[in-house]
Amino acid sequence: MADTPASTSGDFPPFRQRHLISIADLKQHEIIDLLDRAERMVPVSRQERKSLPTLSGKTQINLFFEPSTRTQSSFEIAGKRLGALVVNMSVKTSSVSKGETLVDTAATLNAMRPDVLVVRHGAAGAVELLSQKVGCSVINAGDGAHEHPTQALLDALTIRRHKGRISGLTVAICGDIANSRVARSNLLLLGALHVRTRVIAPRNLLPPGIEHLATEVFTDMEEGLKGVDVVMMLRLQHERASGKMIPSVREYYRFYGLDAEKLAFANPDAIVMHPGPMNRGVEIDPAIADGSRSVITDQVEMGVAVRMAVLDALLSGDQA
Amino acid sequence: MADTPASTSGDFPPFRQRHLISIADLKQHEIIDLLDRAERMVPVSRQERKSLPTLSGKTQINLFFEPSTRTQSSFEIAGKRLGALVVNMSVKTSSVSKGETLVDTAATLNAMRPDVLVVRHGAAGAVELLSQKVGCSVINAGDGAHEHPTQALLDALTIRRHKGRISGLTVAICGDIANSRVARSNLLLLGALHVRTRVIAPRNLLPPGIEHLATEVFTDMEEGLKGVDVVMMLRLQHERASGKMIPSVREYYRFYGLDAEKLAFANPDAIVMHPGPMNRGVEIDPAIADGSRSVITDQVEMGVAVRMAVLDALLSGDQA
Amino acid sequence: MADTPASTSGDFPPFRQRHLISIADLKQHEIIDLLDRAERMVPVSRQERKSLPTLSGKTQINLFFEPSTRTQSSFEIAGKRLGALVVNMSVKTSSVSKGETLVDTAATLNAMRPDVLVVRHGAAGAVELLSQKVGCSVINAGDGAHEHPTQALLDALTIRRHKGRISGLTVAICGDIANSRVARSNLLLLGALHVRTRVIAPRNLLPPGIEHLATEVFTDMEEGLKGVDVVMMLRLQHERASGKMIPSVREYYRFYGLDAEKLAFANPDAIVMHPGPMNRGVEIDPAIADGSRSVITDQVEMGVAVRMAVLDALLSGDQA
Repeated sequence: MADTPASTSGDFPPFRQRHLISIADLKQHEIIDLLDRAERMVPVSRQERKSLPTLSGKTQINLFFEPSTRTQSSFEIAGKRLGALVVNMSVKTSSVSKGETLVDTAATLNAMRPDVLVVRHGAAGAVELLSQKVGCSVINAGDGAHEHPTQALLDALTIRRHKGRISGLTVAICGDIANSRVARSNLLLLGALHVRTRVIAPRNLLPPGIEHLATEVFTDMEEGLKGVDVVMMLRLQHERASGKMIPSVREYYRFYGLDAEKLAFANPDAIVMHPGPMNRGVEIDPAIADGSRSVITDQVEMGVAVRMAVLDALLSGDQA
Repeated sequence: MADTPASTSGDFPPFRQRHLISIADLKQHEIIDLLDRAERMVPVSRQERKSLPTLSGKTQINLFFEPSTRTQSSFEIAGKRLGALVVNMSVKTSSVSKGETLVDTAATLNAMRPDVLVVRHGAAGAVELLSQKVGCSVINAGDGAHEHPTQALLDALTIRRHKGRISGLTVAICGDIANSRVARSNLLLLGALHVRTRVIAPRNLLPPGIEHLATEVFTDMEEGLKGVDVVMMLRLQHERASGKMIPSVREYYRFYGLDAEKLAFANPDAIVMHPGPMNRGVEIDPAIADGSRSVITDQVEMGVAVRMAVLDALLSGDQA
Repeated sequence: MADTPASTSGDFPPFRQRHLISIADLKQHEIIDLLDRAERMVPVSRQERKSLPTLSGKTQINLFFEPSTRTQSSFEIAGKRLGALVVNMSVKTSSVSKGETLVDTAATLNAMRPDVLVVRHGAAGAVELLSQKVGCSVINAGDGAHEHPTQALLDALTIRRHKGRISGLTVAICGDIANSRVARSNLLLLGALHVRTRVIAPRNLLPPGIEHLATEVFTDMEEGLKGVDVVMMLRLQHERASGKMIPSVREYYRFYGLDAEKLAFANPDAIVMHPGPMNRGVEIDPAIADGSRSVITDQVEMGVAVRMAVLDALLSGDQA
């Protein structure tokens, strides 16, 4: 019994989406369905159970216009553990003239008959545009400041496993909200699950209209962290920090870096999250990052399980 | 029955070549044989039929001294769909001292006992030199301005599928003939099949001796395109265009870019081809590239099938 | 019978090490055990026998902070021939802040649940540090000037196959000893097997304390090569050569480059080795490199077999 591969397709109704571009495209039950599928994938992603051959004979192309060792490897491992034939393509955006050539790239790849394209691109909307030109499934692995849906799903799975539930919690997302696709996808997902969300950031890192996405908006960390169950930190872009927006990294850490003193305002059992890679000592105190309330490496682990679930749901849906 | 893997080796006499360096090395019946094998591969390359495990346990190394995302991916997908273990090696030419070190690289790779090396190199003749130093099969994936044999084979397969035949047609190859390995391989292949070939280019982009390779030579597009069945456009190197050879891209497009007006001189059912990546608005009008007579994405698709056929023919020939 | 996969795990007692960081960690019987396992792998690494599926379902991540096409490909082919799922990650050291971030990288990769990490890093000790932070096996593929244990093992296997034995031989290691992890690992391994070792180098390329690692130290090639059974040449770093340490490449070749005249001082049946890539005409005469006594390509071939053996020993030991 212990060695029997987890069956998946049989246990879930077919997943009706062809692509995963945006959390905004998913209904609440589809989000729950993906989290449940990912939960079943955990023993396989941990290699405690045999690989599932559900993508055997399928071709997955990872098309990264922006380099991301971490996300690309997570998708590569996910696909290979499901038996897919995985091809990595790194394309320098510099050598690509915008617009038209993206469409040519899409047409070229499509002609090689992949089953799924996993795409990261620096421009918001580029992945959706590409998805309209191909006959296969497309997964958005991050498009500019727009969305990073598998990150939001892995964050939700991590929360659910640690807190036993998602709904009814209060989640704070802190830092560079304005430019973060992670924040945006998380706010959409948590909103769809009726979670109370707070964003905490200096005024100039809050995007216009953020009050429509988050339940509450704060500019003060201590006030914003009061009574929250989950603290999600975001990576600060160094280049921005040294510019005019942020006076200095030291100033930023003093007011918005998560340390023990600020974390004391959250609930005593609040967990700490970060999408990585971390700037230790900039947005987070190393002692907190490595502390008992940090679930940061669990997020990475859930990333593989979530990507396996998404690949399986999109591609076994094809055959339904 | 529909699911039975296409058998190949059984149906064809063994392919006697050990390498595929140059179309010039192939007899007419060998070209036809490769096209027939590729035709059988199309359903597998489209994943309509199960992968063929004919390269299972074989090692394929893609050794690219010049980067080419498109060609490398095509060979990678072809090999993996046949069950091969595929290893990609990108070597910056800058870090390679010419000549001797190429031979050392060959000796090193050969010692890892691959079954086939797929090699692209910036210097004409480098792939043949390398093939003389190794014990495995070598496929030329483009060597300088010399040859790109799998491109010519995929072009021929695309023509045959669209026109029902190859012999008896008139094919025009237009643009930067002088520096094009694609033009050279195509002229050799079409010549071997007794196809009427025309080259059309400004005088300074015509190589000396071209009249021995092509049936006819033109410097005027409209005159050259009269009555042709196939129009093959070539990519213009931008760096050359801005140099002394071509007055300007705009001038080039005016005289040699394929637009509706010029295409009207070809036969009404003429097809339009391009090896990619395209310079839209330089050698081809985007409306023609995306139009109903363009078979450009079919060429990419046939590329995977042709590379599967070549890999299969070379490696199953080994065992015969 | 000829086609039966070589069984390995059954024939050897379990290998007790979890990592392979340093030859210094291995007892004599463990070195012999790895060489015997590698010997059994040779027919599989040569593809004369079927691939061994002993790593089927296992995940191997090649994490190279310094690029090395040759070593990375050797580990990649070794893992794939054993059926492992292999993921390559190239990390530019420039984008990695030292120390802490290496630990974060380790934690991130560990969370993806690989079975083995193959790591090359520019800093001595970095691979060991990383191994302390992860739950999987770690193989050192070269850390700064510290160690390169699989190179020493493949050198020993090559010697044993050519000379029929290792103990009782005299081995000279010549050239840039001071900065060579290859020299260090070889001296440790040969020392553990009670081989007489000599190092030969200009005084400024001899590290302090070398007399504790090598049996004898020479600064004169002809004197040092007298009566040796094996001549191991090392790669000279060009950048160092043009600096203050070496007067000039021409001078270096004159005094320390291996040519027929110097080789004549060694035993008549002495073999010549080089870890590659070679600087022909700098540390070795091309005629010697390609001559009948050179076993340089055999070293590369044994590299794949040794890496298969190490992967198999570390990972099947897990299950014991």
